Amino acid sequence: MLTRSIVLAVSAHALLASGPARADEGMWLPNALPAADLKAKHGFEATPALLERLQKSAVRFSTGGSGSIVSRDGLVMTNHHVGSDMLAKLSTPERDLLVTGFLAKDRGEELKCPDLELNALWSIEDVTDRVVAAAAAAKDTAAAGEARRREITRIEDESEKATGLKSQVVTLWQGGRHHLYRYRTWRDVRLVFAPETAIAFFGGDADNFEFPRYDLDCCFFRIYEDGKPLAPEHFLAWDADGAKDGELVFTWGHPGSTNRLYTADHVAFMRDVEEPMGLRRLWRNEVKLGTFSGRGAEEARIAREDLFGTQNGRKSSQGLLDALQDPALVGAKRAEEEALLKRLAGKPEAKEFEEGRRLVRESLAAWKRLAPDYMAFERRMRGGALAGIARTLVRMKAEDAKPSADRLPEFADANRASLEARLYSPAPIYPQLEIERMASMLSGLAEERGLDDPLVARLLAGKSPRTRATELVRGTKLADVAARRAPDPADPMIAFMASVDAEARAARQAWEDQVDAPQELGYGKIAAARFAAFGDSVYPDATFTLRMSYGTVKGWTSADGTEVPAFTTIGGTFARAKARAGDPAFELPASWIAAQPKLAADVPFNFASTNDIIGGNSGSPVVDADGEVVGLVFDGNLDSLAGDVVYDVTRNRAVSVDARAIIEAMRTVYGAQSLAAELAGAAR
Amino acid sequence: MLTRSIVLAVSAHALLASGPARADEGMWLPNALPAADLKAKHGFEATPALLERLQKSAVRFSTGGSGSIVSRDGLVMTNHHVGSDMLAKLSTPERDLLVTGFLAKDRGEELKCPDLELNALWSIEDVTDRVVAAAAAAKDTAAAGEARRREITRIEDESEKATGLKSQVVTLWQGGRHHLYRYRTWRDVRLVFAPETAIAFFGGDADNFEFPRYDLDCCFFRIYEDGKPLAPEHFLAWDADGAKDGELVFTWGHPGSTNRLYTADHVAFMRDVEEPMGLRRLWRNEVKLGTFSGRGAEEARIAREDLFGTQNGRKSSQGLLDALQDPALVGAKRAEEEALLKRLAGKPEAKEFEEGRRLVRESLAAWKRLAPDYMAFERRMRGGALAGIARTLVRMKAEDAKPSADRLPEFADANRASLEARLYSPAPIYPQLEIERMASMLSGLAEERGLDDPLVARLLAGKSPRTRATELVRGTKLADVAARRAPDPADPMIAFMASVDAEARAARQAWEDQVDAPQELGYGKIAAARFAAFGDSVYPDATFTLRMSYGTVKGWTSADGTEVPAFTTIGGTFARAKARAGDPAFELPASWIAAQPKLAADVPFNFASTNDIIGGNSGSPVVDADGEVVGLVFDGNLDSLAGDVVYDVTRNRAVSVDARAIIEAMRTVYGAQSLAAELAGAAR
Repeated sequence: MLTRSIVLAVSAHALLASGPARADEGMWLPNALPAADLKAKHGFEATPALLERLQKSAVRFSTGGSGSIVSRDGLVMTNHHVGSDMLAKLSTPERDLLVTGFLAKDRGEELKCPDLELNALWSIEDVTDRVVAAAAAAKDTAAAGEARRREITRIEDESEKATGLKSQVVTLWQGGRHHLYRYRTWRDVRLVFAPETAIAFFGGDADNFEFPRYDLDCCFFRIYEDGKPLAPEHFLAWDADGAKDGELVFTWGHPGSTNRLYTADHVAFMRDVEEPMGLRRLWRNEVKLGTFSGRGAEEARIAREDLFGTQNGRKSSQGLLDALQDPALVGAKRAEEEALLKRLAGKPEAKEFEEGRRLVRESLAAWKRLAPDYMAFERRMRGGALAGIARTLVRMKAEDAKPSADRLPEFADANRASLEARLYSPAPIYPQLEIERMASMLSGLAEERGLDDPLVARLLAGKSPRTRATELVRGTKLADVAARRAPDPADPMIAFMASVDAEARAARQAWEDQVDAPQELGYGKIAAARFAAFGDSVYPDATFTLRMSYGTVKGWTSADGTEVPAFTTIGGTFARAKARAGDPAFELPASWIAAQPKLAADVPFNFASTNDIIGGNSGSPVVDADGEVVGLVFDGNLDSLAGDVVYDVTRNRAVSVDARAIIEAMRTVYGAQSLAAELAGAAR
Repeated sequence: MLTRSIVLAVSAHALLASGPARADEGMWLPNALPAADLKAKHGFEATPALLERLQKSAVRFSTGGSGSIVSRDGLVMTNHHVGSDMLAKLSTPERDLLVTGFLAKDRGEELKCPDLELNALWSIEDVTDRVVAAAAAAKDTAAAGEARRREITRIEDESEKATGLKSQVVTLWQGGRHHLYRYRTWRDVRLVFAPETAIAFFGGDADNFEFPRYDLDCCFFRIYEDGKPLAPEHFLAWDADGAKDGELVFTWGHPGSTNRLYTADHVAFMRDVEEPMGLRRLWRNEVKLGTFSGRGAEEARIAREDLFGTQNGRKSSQGLLDALQDPALVGAKRAEEEALLKRLAGKPEAKEFEEGRRLVRESLAAWKRLAPDYMAFERRMRGGALAGIARTLVRMKAEDAKPSADRLPEFADANRASLEARLYSPAPIYPQLEIERMASMLSGLAEERGLDDPLVARLLAGKSPRTRATELVRGTKLADVAARRAPDPADPMIAFMASVDAEARAARQAWEDQVDAPQELGYGKIAAARFAAFGDSVYPDATFTLRMSYGTVKGWTSADGTEVPAFTTIGGTFARAKARAGDPAFELPASWIAAQPKLAADVPFNFASTNDIIGGNSGSPVVDADGEVVGLVFDGNLDSLAGDVVYDVTRNRAVSVDARAIIEAMRTVYGAQSLAAELAGAAR
């Protein structure tokens, strides 16, 4: 499933994406759509009004994922697996919304989410010149990186102060451009409807990233402003007729991260170092969370989101690594770079490209050298909600003493409101799970560095990882929001995180100076070379910002020659459940079994399309040429898992819930007539 | 569960085992029982006849595990999880014995196992002097190791030729002594009775290594000789009254491996290097096998044994690592060494001990340096049944050209019959699972060494791991036993294994010379120092050879103060199933649900005792002072998982099936009246 930080990825035999985009490839910037291509290939032209509506109806979920406003009363559609984080936080041992699903009978019953923030992109401004100029006088690569980061914070703070809008500078083409994005922000978001996980994630890990598929992976929220449902300036209409096989469709969503512009060296490094390292951590976490969950029903409930996220990440990373481990993939990348150099022969950009590759190689050597400390102390140390809160409190105190531009960016003024919303969230915290996470983090440190490593010894304080974790979690007061608002330096979790903060900051600084800075500089040069060779036809890699993709509803021919049709049907769901009887992942919920006689078996359920999407696109609306909703992206097929580095139109498919299935299920299974009517009423 | 190669392990606060054994600690050699201790502590004396009966009734399973002959008609009792390997091999998609269980209505229905070998220890001879003398003239440590290995092969070959008995030289105290063991061997072994996995492994991974416990983890085979049931010279009688709380009981079985005599440096190395490395591999395999199993019912069936073995190994290794990661454990080890040195002060053995520790440190440095190649090419390369067969065939051809003593030991004359029984086994081979195993092995190599490593590149031959694995598995003829008897060097799997054999042999030679040889020499010196300090009271670490443990039936007080009683009951099983309803691991089989009204709820089901056991002891009989069967060892509690390095009588417990529960289930659940009668009839 396509939540953010989960990478998706195409066969090594595909043409690579680092040249100009081909076929239906590309995650296009809203201010740089491939208008000429769309007209030439698909005869499609959009009015500015339609494009504005599509842009401003799209929302980004702070928890990682996409969504869209789909009614004049602020209804927001996303995936169940994007909303599941909130479903878990709104659940109790007695009322497990992930198992039962949820339907608010009226607006008074809609459930306020503890810490969800939705953002809609309101404007874009190119600030590249300002960012580049700030670093012009820097004495070296690291200083230039530092200067750019400070300037970005200044730009964000100024913009936020001037407009009141959340402001973020987005670095595109890995350093080729810097754009200032301003967002409308909503923090009063309430749960309206969610089906049971059993149908939202029917087939579980076995069918995840597979197709044919039969999942009602949808979830509806409503935005409130001043205690009343939002009356949005823009929203998407519903197309009751859905999409046809071969129809042109678009997604507007927030793909999290791709690495298609990486050099061949960098892709080989991902293959041999980064991805294996990431998978080792995922395998470890999956087994540990699985055994924790096996201890009892309540343990399973409180660990479910962690476990699902880990399994989802593992399946997509494994798919990507499988693709990378085909020797042809990096071979094709290398050939493509040679072709680019040939094209640029004699131009100064060829030299710049070579210099860019050298800088990237330099950054990779630093990556390998610095990763153990950086991953352990800066990234993974936040192993648990309480540990993360403690780190934020420790740093907030130190950072607040500085001017905004001098702070770590997450503590700058422009980010303060979002930070506090997360930090002071009333979402439940489970000590048992926190102990498990802390113990896992501490034992992981001992596994990597040895128990006698001075820092490990200091953190364990002479105890075993589990004993130490128990003492910290039982001893801290941070589960109470009031204790976060007036943090006590003697709180054991705060003292623990403070004791390693110097090492963590040093590891982060080294990483920014020796990995991020040369990469940004190097890829800036490489981007310049690509622009020189291909002009605007090179879309930037995904950055968890709004992108448009276009494609056609279409099945494919699998490697073994099987024809995979574009659509599945509601009736097919029952056949699949029967074929896999006995496997708990394929048990339909009672509501569906009861409704089977009334459900129209031939209603399309899920469909495949050639849209180029990736993790983070989960919950993106699929719209037709009129901008009306025909589906809801929730997954990619197995062949799409190479999409992190390459796109292959012959096999890469986005997978969506059909808009007709959503209405059919609301009406026939869930008795959600008014919600279905609200969606239909939005038709213009 | 206590199958071999699965380590068990005691709290770091326990007294360590490397000094003289205390309380009920010890895995005692049959020819060096702690007679004085038994008399002094428990007032127990055994007759030579009783000891001979116990020794010769105990059998070792070639698949890893223990058992005992329990009727005058050659009936053998072991655990379900020891027999499960055969149950899987005797199953088909249509008849899954692990799900259904099995009961032969009469002897004609008993199912012949494809490749099971049982061994009973018939005699022991000390050959230390001969082995030591053979190495006296060696020029260095490596040459001495080589000379010892050759002499051992000569001794085994001579003994086998002279007696017709399977002959193995066992190295005890990690190098302190060498004993020649001669075994009676049986290869016509037939399945008689097995319950369903659902009750044999009730509670699954969640309850594994836990107590209270409710498992009918038993399985019965029968030995045949010349086509007729064996009339054994010795067998164990059944005690219909079972054991009482506080009663003295013994186990006679084959603990696989312990490391209690390891130096503190070595234990720290296990903690920081060996165990984390092993766990990383187990986590990876568990997730990969789990996702393979999730693809369908048949995939789950064919991968079940691999998955169970991996989960069992992971749970026990994790328990051991958790114990090791208490800083107090290695601290206690270090203190104990200093105490030993103090005791030996002024004696030459003190210097020998220091030299032994130095040699061990040297071996550990070599371990770290050599492990990547050794593990990859010599150990893990046999990733799959077909790959293992191909390696055996490649080496057999080369080794058979040499005199027996010059061969790799597994190809020596004395081991030939066992080797051929395994190599030419008609057990089914599943291409789908073989592809999975080979692909996992190849991708693992690429993860560790990088895809461009020359050897990885050579093995992949320009293809992705899965493509290459598919080509090898689909291309080989080795699934057919006839093709193994006349191996074709052009067979793709044989050619593949031949292409890496030189590297694998070199890695093994380096390991034997630089890790094994200095360790054996070093631990020889350390053992001599321990003998000097403590005399015979130091039992040797486990070596998957016959050992006696004594203990008392006894509950314990857990860390949080809970009193855990020694016995569970059959009635408790139904209560536990109800408490964990909804978790598939706690679903009772239909046979038990149907039999519940007739089952005597108060019959003891499982019990805990202080016997000192470890992985490999699975299936060991528990006998009372008269040598009559009162139970069947199948597990240790969670606190026992440190037993690999320490034993703590306050918390370490063996867990056994009560003999009364076996009879009650046979009679009331399974209608196995004649089998129950056969067991009862064996009473003298």
